[in-house]
Amino acid sequence: MSDNTFGRLFRMTTFGESHGPAIGCVIDGCPPGLEISADEIHQELLRRATGKSRHTSQRKEKDEVQILSGVFEGRTTGTPIALVIENTDARSKDYTEIAEKIRPGHADYTYWKKYSHRDYRGGGRSSARETTMRVAAGAIARKYLREQFGVEIQGWLAQLGPIRTDGVINLDSVEDNPFFCPDPGVVSQLESHMDQLRKSGDSCGARITAVARNVPAGLGEPVYGKLDADLASAMMSINAAKAVEVGAGFACVDQLGTDHRDEITPDGFLSNHAGGILGGISSGQDVLVSVAFKPTSSLRIPCKSVDINGNAVEVVTKGRHDPCVGIRATPIVEAMLALVLMDHVLRQRAQNG
Amino acid sequence: MSDNTFGRLFRMTTFGESHGPAIGCVIDGCPPGLEISADEIHQELLRRATGKSRHTSQRKEKDEVQILSGVFEGRTTGTPIALVIENTDARSKDYTEIAEKIRPGHADYTYWKKYSHRDYRGGGRSSARETTMRVAAGAIARKYLREQFGVEIQGWLAQLGPIRTDGVINLDSVEDNPFFCPDPGVVSQLESHMDQLRKSGDSCGARITAVARNVPAGLGEPVYGKLDADLASAMMSINAAKAVEVGAGFACVDQLGTDHRDEITPDGFLSNHAGGILGGISSGQDVLVSVAFKPTSSLRIPCKSVDINGNAVEVVTKGRHDPCVGIRATPIVEAMLALVLMDHVLRQRAQNG
Amino acid sequence: MSDNTFGRLFRMTTFGESHGPAIGCVIDGCPPGLEISADEIHQELLRRATGKSRHTSQRKEKDEVQILSGVFEGRTTGTPIALVIENTDARSKDYTEIAEKIRPGHADYTYWKKYSHRDYRGGGRSSARETTMRVAAGAIARKYLREQFGVEIQGWLAQLGPIRTDGVINLDSVEDNPFFCPDPGVVSQLESHMDQLRKSGDSCGARITAVARNVPAGLGEPVYGKLDADLASAMMSINAAKAVEVGAGFACVDQLGTDHRDEITPDGFLSNHAGGILGGISSGQDVLVSVAFKPTSSLRIPCKSVDINGNAVEVVTKGRHDPCVGIRATPIVEAMLALVLMDHVLRQRAQNG
Amino acid sequence: MSDNTFGRLFRMTTFGESHGPAIGCVIDGCPPGLEISADEIHQELLRRATGKSRHTSQRKEKDEVQILSGVFEGRTTGTPIALVIENTDARSKDYTEIAEKIRPGHADYTYWKKYSHRDYRGGGRSSARETTMRVAAGAIARKYLREQFGVEIQGWLAQLGPIRTDGVINLDSVEDNPFFCPDPGVVSQLESHMDQLRKSGDSCGARITAVARNVPAGLGEPVYGKLDADLASAMMSINAAKAVEVGAGFACVDQLGTDHRDEITPDGFLSNHAGGILGGISSGQDVLVSVAFKPTSSLRIPCKSVDINGNAVEVVTKGRHDPCVGIRATPIVEAMLALVLMDHVLRQRAQNG
Repeated sequence: MSDNTFGRLFRMTTFGESHGPAIGCVIDGCPPGLEISADEIHQELLRRATGKSRHTSQRKEKDEVQILSGVFEGRTTGTPIALVIENTDARSKDYTEIAEKIRPGHADYTYWKKYSHRDYRGGGRSSARETTMRVAAGAIARKYLREQFGVEIQGWLAQLGPIRTDGVINLDSVEDNPFFCPDPGVVSQLESHMDQLRKSGDSCGARITAVARNVPAGLGEPVYGKLDADLASAMMSINAAKAVEVGAGFACVDQLGTDHRDEITPDGFLSNHAGGILGGISSGQDVLVSVAFKPTSSLRIPCKSVDINGNAVEVVTKGRHDPCVGIRATPIVEAMLALVLMDHVLRQRAQNG
Repeated sequence: MSDNTFGRLFRMTTFGESHGPAIGCVIDGCPPGLEISADEIHQELLRRATGKSRHTSQRKEKDEVQILSGVFEGRTTGTPIALVIENTDARSKDYTEIAEKIRPGHADYTYWKKYSHRDYRGGGRSSARETTMRVAAGAIARKYLREQFGVEIQGWLAQLGPIRTDGVINLDSVEDNPFFCPDPGVVSQLESHMDQLRKSGDSCGARITAVARNVPAGLGEPVYGKLDADLASAMMSINAAKAVEVGAGFACVDQLGTDHRDEITPDGFLSNHAGGILGGISSGQDVLVSVAFKPTSSLRIPCKSVDINGNAVEVVTKGRHDPCVGIRATPIVEAMLALVLMDHVLRQRAQNG
Repeated sequence: MSDNTFGRLFRMTTFGESHGPAIGCVIDGCPPGLEISADEIHQELLRRATGKSRHTSQRKEKDEVQILSGVFEGRTTGTPIALVIENTDARSKDYTEIAEKIRPGHADYTYWKKYSHRDYRGGGRSSARETTMRVAAGAIARKYLREQFGVEIQGWLAQLGPIRTDGVINLDSVEDNPFFCPDPGVVSQLESHMDQLRKSGDSCGARITAVARNVPAGLGEPVYGKLDADLASAMMSINAAKAVEVGAGFACVDQLGTDHRDEITPDGFLSNHAGGILGGISSGQDVLVSVAFKPTSSLRIPCKSVDINGNAVEVVTKGRHDPCVGIRATPIVEAMLALVLMDHVLRQRAQNG
Repeated sequence: MSDNTFGRLFRMTTFGESHGPAIGCVIDGCPPGLEISADEIHQELLRRATGKSRHTSQRKEKDEVQILSGVFEGRTTGTPIALVIENTDARSKDYTEIAEKIRPGHADYTYWKKYSHRDYRGGGRSSARETTMRVAAGAIARKYLREQFGVEIQGWLAQLGPIRTDGVINLDSVEDNPFFCPDPGVVSQLESHMDQLRKSGDSCGARITAVARNVPAGLGEPVYGKLDADLASAMMSINAAKAVEVGAGFACVDQLGTDHRDEITPDGFLSNHAGGILGGISSGQDVLVSVAFKPTSSLRIPCKSVDINGNAVEVVTKGRHDPCVGIRATPIVEAMLALVLMDHVLRQRAQNG
């Protein structure tokens, strides 16, 4: 059962390979009457674009999104919204050498085992290029959430390799640097760390945190459609993600019950270790989620591998890659948070009116 | 949209409240011809039972499972398997005092906000008692996976409060102690930690790790039905879970790409930081997942809260509770791992034959 | 992919075999706060019960329904509602002779081909006994629809064998005879037709029509979740159904466009050939659906068949059967109509608020 | 909950409005390795194209389909297949007059009630143009079914207005006339009937029948995913469909049980009143389905209606329309039959291996 659809009631189906003619998505279930334009979506896409700084891939995609359906006279109609972006800067010849080689740490091996026949160019369907459509669909979800409920979503870089970047969280400064770093004080440290990595040909991991404010209480279906379970799935579905936390996350293992439980007064909660979710349902507190991204496996430092015939080969990845995929991951994490909340707003409305 | 069903093709729908007449589940999609008995399921249930040691809740449920359908002459027929367990040791009077009080850290507040009308006795639907049915359904999935593919699933306690318990991993000893601790050397330390906690009236968190061996390569749907995304959702849907890792998990943030990528030789992978999953698809290596459980919020140490009318109250939780829910979580984590793999075995079969 | 669940947001999952210990269902997605009792459900079940007259099967099931979950202090909580009915009058020995014989016109042959291993007693899972749970779940849907929107649902026998019974439609008289016949004038004709059939050992088909009044306009999702498409699926899923019509149905083939299109004035529609549905969406007019049921294949008149080894055999069906399944089908058609409308009420609420 | 996706495991999601920039679909779940080209799909599209004769709409769409993803080096990869067709001959100005008028018999009224904001040009999303993508996706399903199982699907016109056209069924002649009429002897009668209708400005209904041969036994999920229930839903989801029959269909009402039940011998079934489906599961006999299409409501003969403000208006539909939508419906019925069978082939494979 192939599964390129995300969401139950606000459903995004994405398609497209990195080096195919286009990528796109169909969004089904968007309420009618929302004002939306290709330009608004494009603004969000610019935030995750490659080539914004020397620290990310130099592939330059225009990412000009076309709305093929579902919007009439500037407003959604309730019918499926199809978005398409042409791939204009795909350099497939970079990949011919690698057609039969398995790149360790990539999906090459597993796609090969699963499908036998695959589009190997630029990772094909497993390319991070797919996340473009998450950000595009997320832009629509985000706008609806903001207009209807005042929900505000913001993500940031919390750690890059060994550098913690969330000692100071100044959300106003997040957009001022190419890292989405909330602490202006560590930006130069990040710059030099990345310069060094690039020189060495290696890569590093990152952690991204995101918060949603003004989330209505009552979102999330207890048991198997828990808001946190859906967030975990959403975040883990992002390329290179290896771990997800909600609220205190792994730190809760070391906490005492008296520390962790968030006491309540008539004026509200006294803390938020829960990350805004209790029993799988939003409490009205800030929803807080954190995601770990592994270091890119596409390196020019050679490594041992096999080809599709099982012979030993040496793999050196050329092409244009991000030495830290986490740098551009913030808008994707935000988008997935928006998509989950949007879906649950509709789900809540269905059952509880 | 209520969501009490887990899985796409091997689907478990659970029902029941902690203090209602019974809990149960319906499993739809189990292949025909599998030998299964109520007794085999019961054996798995005993592993998560309360009252096995002084360190867990003293509620004593017989957990006698009845198979109402889907099994004929000892073998599954391919029709829905309904399992029911009567609740026999529910002491609802323990809860009358708490009917209108919101217990911090519990789902009381959010259920109240979501549904208005709720069964407050023993947590009602949000009780960990629901996980009984996960273990029951998991027993069926597990048997099928073992018989058809030789898949072996084993979990263990990796950390309890501040005590790391996976320094030494001796899986043979996991079942020999009430903690599912793989290191016999730390069991007495766990005993005294728990005794102390019980005395103080406080609780602590835990981390559980589980592995699945002999998982066929090719399971998992790239993009939104990734094996790791489904595992993240499965694990985060367990009561009290706050974080999930696959493979290296959060540790990957500090790794270099040259460390993390698992090199391959004609004889196989040289390491397993990926946790057996690349691009959302199983590679044939061990699938490794880790889950954080928060400390129980049901404490006899008083805390601040409100009642359903918004008035300040003091809450003291009586009843019979686990001072560390993680102690009994190992069979549940294993069950969820089995259910996810089982579902993906069927999904893989559908599309790829 | 097994599929024992009906509905998207108001979801009923049924389980159980005709001669197993019990049949039941789980209803997920019922809004909280609805008053409902086992007795109310039981009243609906009595309408489809066997043994009410000499014209139906003489199997006597008490059909005492037990609510295992989801209802607290007389009202739904929004959590899954589990209903169970024990099978008390199953005479499995009637079937031992037929264990290896394929009964023509039944699901024996196809279950055998599909599953190999099957519960052959009384049709097992393919027994019409499964429809009991449709009526039970339908009772809940019906109550909600009536209370929230004033929707009224009523079905009737439109034809039995060669006898048209809807020349005169007096809905008040439908419950006054064992046939759900709306025309009191033809009841005695039905009686003698059935007596004759029973004597000859043969069976006949029937057509049931049902109407839903006060259906809000706007229900139904255009394209693939059309209200009429979902009705068609719902009706065709009933045992023995072979055809479904909405509004004018097959008669539209002979109509001119000027006849069929229902003209509109400021006071409303001038006719209702559409059956209350345009473009898959309810218009606010009466929703009208009609279903054909084939004659029962369980006959004591011998017929040619094979056994599971492919040998020629003669089949004579003993046991207690309905010589016209259509006689008891009216409450089932009504229930399916209620379930579809209920599901669409929630679906409409999700997207359109 | 919007619902523009058809199928469970072989899933087609369509998008696009009649007068928007393009229509398209995403097919998820197609097995990898199938050879397919845009040209093969185009050949199927030509069968349903407008403007092939004077008896259908004169809108001339090139229907040049573009494959945007999921096919690499001529074969499917198992990733989503996106198809797009630009709308090139949309004459939106034909519709400006009708923007605020409700056309009786169309979806105008119900879309208005449901969404408030709608693309009224050419029916927007409710246009039969959406069925283009069904035929396109159906072409892929059909090819897979033929190659893997030898399944052959063929539809024909069974009745047009008052003219029965299936007295003689010569399937070889179906493609030789613009009506898909299997009886060459009545073609001229159809020609003159249509000419007369066109002169009068009126329209008529039609009935289409389709058969699938060599369908493997065992397809279909009993209870709610019955093969016939899914066929009923598929057919009723086609624009203008009002009724669906399987096998004997409504004729079974008049049959005796001894007539209807299809006796079996070691050499096979002696008749096929069941239409190849017993208990919701295919028996290996021919699957036979029949669909009624209502007469087009777009007529130049004026009729009474209201505008969106509720005022009485007279409606005259200009634009280019089919006086009998059934004429072009055969390829659509075939496509839906192919899509249902394809989905069930995958579903069967999932559970039963």
